[in-house]
Amino acid sequence: MKIVRRLLLSILLAMSLLACSKERQRPNILLFLVDDYGWIESSLAFGEQVYPMNECYHTPNIEALASQGVMMTSAYACPVSTPTRTSIMTGMSASRMGITSFTSLYKDICPDAADSSCGYANPNLTDVFEHPEWNYNALCPEQFADQVERYGLNRHVVATPMVKLLRDAGYYTIHVGKADWAPAGMPGANPYNMGFMVSIADTDNQEAGRYQSEDNGSNNSYTSVQNMAQYYGTDIHLTEALTMEAIKSLETPIARKEPFFLYLGHYADSTPIGSCEKYYKKYLNSGFDPQFSAYAAMVESVDASLGEILSYLDSKGVADNTIVIFYSDNGGKNHTQNLPLRAGKASVYEGGIRVPMIVRWPGKVVADTRINTPVNNEDIFPTILEMAEIDDYKIQQELDGRSLVRLFTAGSKYVATAQQRGLITTQREANRFVVPKSVSGIDPQRPIVVHYPHQYCVEDTPYIDFMSAVRVGDWKLVYRMHEAELELYNLRDDIGERNNLAASMPEKRDELATTLSKKLREWDAPMPTIRATAERVPMPDEL
Amino acid sequence: MKIVRRLLLSILLAMSLLACSKERQRPNILLFLVDDYGWIESSLAFGEQVYPMNECYHTPNIEALASQGVMMTSAYACPVSTPTRTSIMTGMSASRMGITSFTSLYKDICPDAADSSCGYANPNLTDVFEHPEWNYNALCPEQFADQVERYGLNRHVVATPMVKLLRDAGYYTIHVGKADWAPAGMPGANPYNMGFMVSIADTDNQEAGRYQSEDNGSNNSYTSVQNMAQYYGTDIHLTEALTMEAIKSLETPIARKEPFFLYLGHYADSTPIGSCEKYYKKYLNSGFDPQFSAYAAMVESVDASLGEILSYLDSKGVADNTIVIFYSDNGGKNHTQNLPLRAGKASVYEGGIRVPMIVRWPGKVVADTRINTPVNNEDIFPTILEMAEIDDYKIQQELDGRSLVRLFTAGSKYVATAQQRGLITTQREANRFVVPKSVSGIDPQRPIVVHYPHQYCVEDTPYIDFMSAVRVGDWKLVYRMHEAELELYNLRDDIGERNNLAASMPEKRDELATTLSKKLREWDAPMPTIRATAERVPMPDEL
Repeated sequence: MKIVRRLLLSILLAMSLLACSKERQRPNILLFLVDDYGWIESSLAFGEQVYPMNECYHTPNIEALASQGVMMTSAYACPVSTPTRTSIMTGMSASRMGITSFTSLYKDICPDAADSSCGYANPNLTDVFEHPEWNYNALCPEQFADQVERYGLNRHVVATPMVKLLRDAGYYTIHVGKADWAPAGMPGANPYNMGFMVSIADTDNQEAGRYQSEDNGSNNSYTSVQNMAQYYGTDIHLTEALTMEAIKSLETPIARKEPFFLYLGHYADSTPIGSCEKYYKKYLNSGFDPQFSAYAAMVESVDASLGEILSYLDSKGVADNTIVIFYSDNGGKNHTQNLPLRAGKASVYEGGIRVPMIVRWPGKVVADTRINTPVNNEDIFPTILEMAEIDDYKIQQELDGRSLVRLFTAGSKYVATAQQRGLITTQREANRFVVPKSVSGIDPQRPIVVHYPHQYCVEDTPYIDFMSAVRVGDWKLVYRMHEAELELYNLRDDIGERNNLAASMPEKRDELATTLSKKLREWDAPMPTIRATAERVPMPDEL
Repeated sequence: MKIVRRLLLSILLAMSLLACSKERQRPNILLFLVDDYGWIESSLAFGEQVYPMNECYHTPNIEALASQGVMMTSAYACPVSTPTRTSIMTGMSASRMGITSFTSLYKDICPDAADSSCGYANPNLTDVFEHPEWNYNALCPEQFADQVERYGLNRHVVATPMVKLLRDAGYYTIHVGKADWAPAGMPGANPYNMGFMVSIADTDNQEAGRYQSEDNGSNNSYTSVQNMAQYYGTDIHLTEALTMEAIKSLETPIARKEPFFLYLGHYADSTPIGSCEKYYKKYLNSGFDPQFSAYAAMVESVDASLGEILSYLDSKGVADNTIVIFYSDNGGKNHTQNLPLRAGKASVYEGGIRVPMIVRWPGKVVADTRINTPVNNEDIFPTILEMAEIDDYKIQQELDGRSLVRLFTAGSKYVATAQQRGLITTQREANRFVVPKSVSGIDPQRPIVVHYPHQYCVEDTPYIDFMSAVRVGDWKLVYRMHEAELELYNLRDDIGERNNLAASMPEKRDELATTLSKKLREWDAPMPTIRATAERVPMPDEL
């Protein structure tokens, strides 16, 4: 009977292993995406020091998240929302997609105004620009590829959306809030077409309209946001309502033990500023003006939302198997509020493109660490797919991003070791510490390109005027097309981009100009033309 | 080694049985719910004969469905949509819920107009009625029970929605189209609160607004319907768009081999009549007037939708494990179009409450059969749950409906046997054949109560004026409250309710009056009051 018993045992073992492997679940993923939320707009300091702007905000949940995960101190996004959001969905550079600005609310309408050199009035300008042809109908999910002509899509925007791959792999995919992958009327505007199984509180276009819900379904409520009618006439702020709906949406996958991907796209802190009453008076009483108080209250409502969601995950016992990614779609929209960073939303200066990013991944990412390696929106696609253990996927698009999984995991471990060894003792040292490519798989010198071949007129907001930039390590080149000028900055010494070194360091300037031009050519990036000559504006290396 | 081999074999057998039981899947369920779609409004004749109205329509897919399933020739619904739809979700009688009419578009607004005795002007009327207190904020899903007061809910409307039970049992629950379980602003209006995982093309209230999508997001498109922007400016009729979205929504559960419940609630054929161009000219060319042609084209577009969905299920190989229920929420809205039935939508005469119903259930329901046993909207809740193999569920409400599963299965078999034995040879015989309770579990004499304690003014539409009715077997009592009169009809001989037998058969009249009164009292059904005296209108047995 010995042999029988042994056989039985081994069969039982095999069965239990099978059962175990069925139990083992891919990690849940929460992408907590905030809108127009600047790098400096929290009490958590992403910089080398706590700046005065940090001290204006109160975001305890974001602070807590950072203490449990890794802070990416050099995370980038496009200068405006649609390019960042479509890049997340496709892993492509915005320039390759030709989606380089925000779209109109409805399809087939180019949002670009005629070049007026507004805002940044340079009396020496002689050339008036024409906006480039670009994909203002934005992203096209692959299943609509045969209808590209019908939809007037003119460039490389047919893509396999990240969420479709997650869904096909068994994820329970939930969209709550702002989408903004295409203007209303395009298939890409509909979360269901992007691979989401659940879509709550979308708007058919980008805008919430309002954050307050003061009356019943008229202009004082967020009526453009779907599935929200039960909050009309209450004092429930849109950010709170989205949070409540997001939590409800998690019930099913948690009950079914299915891995979930929750894309919570807060409308906040996009305009119009909709103060959250709960927090407003605190800021007012601290001496801030009403406008800033309203804004800071909105920021705190986003922070509270994060706290609510994380508490819920804790209460359900799934936090340990949930990866949380906190990220913003572009820099802070108020250009005077991003100090020490220069400019803000829609600019290629740091104020427009450097964004907060935190990744919490229990058991994989070492808590309370900082990584300074520059990362960009196109990296999120391959990163999330690797997190979801999805490999050898087939996609329609060419992938520009790189998975950051090793950077988050091995990178944070490497940083933690350096901390233990006393190599990092201050925030400044942490922000200057370099994680080598051999450890993380990501070259810290990898070029980060930002391209905004548009002019976007906002009163009192200069530097939104046909610009490109590239960061390579500590160095950053800014190309101001209208002036046909290159600027060079060393971000390590000069994060505010005040000290232009282009004239004094022509070799570094030209090196970066070559790098930037090469990338723009590779991607066939949209470029403006000069109205008088109809010629393309020069590439930076053609100046 | 013999014993080892035997052991191994039995273990393998056990494992394969385990695997099989895992593979075995609950049936998919498609509830194809049409709006304002009358019993007579298809080329499929639910009556004892093909009536002239049947010959005006062309609905080949509905005909095909009937040939593959069982036709319920005495299926009932409430006279208007909200009571039927909430009853489906709760298994309660509309009278018990106190949801006896359609709601307003937005919460807290009673839709009842003051009694004007409009439409049905009887010069002898002296009593002016006040509408009863009823639940015009409609259904409240159980998870909002603690907020009943906040929402101003005043009767028995807290319920465990059917779809929540399906979801909790592992169904992939999809809502497409019209909801109408509560006015916008109430939790019950949101399909996500009702247990749906997916919600497509809801409106936040009952109305589609338009069926055509002639331009881009303005008044000539179905802009009130969510998730539809990509169809604006196309010639895609709303009914077609809903069908396309419904089919897309099925991809995930079919790919995952999860049982699905698809609630496809077409807005058609609700007003405003939105002709489907594809079919319109055919009717016009056949000599019908433009108004009827538009309506018949709309009916045919619904039929085409059914065909598309069923073809898709075939193409995916899941039709054999999918139960299809075709049903309407009330009678035809045009009172002159329901002949031979009397009156139409909102009336308790047969034209307002008798609706088409077909159930296709491969392997369980014998195809091409007719069952005449009266069934009602509250039966759908326990029926679908039994179909889904969900038993001993806990619900907040008292269940009024009865599962029709045995009626559909054993009943259709019993009918088929009678057909084989030559007991049924004509349509008339089929419609008069009785399936005994001993076979079906459903007493063919079970009272079917319809209660409309409201006045609803529509030009040229009489008989929408504070009425109740009960059907018991072939007999039907109609209570016209304003006239304080009872009418008695024998539906077997007089389906058009022309020959009032109340005076000649007082015993039968009183018997049914007692039955109706008992039910209304049991449910504490809303009753109007007489304005002058503030007294409740008499129950039928108090006359």
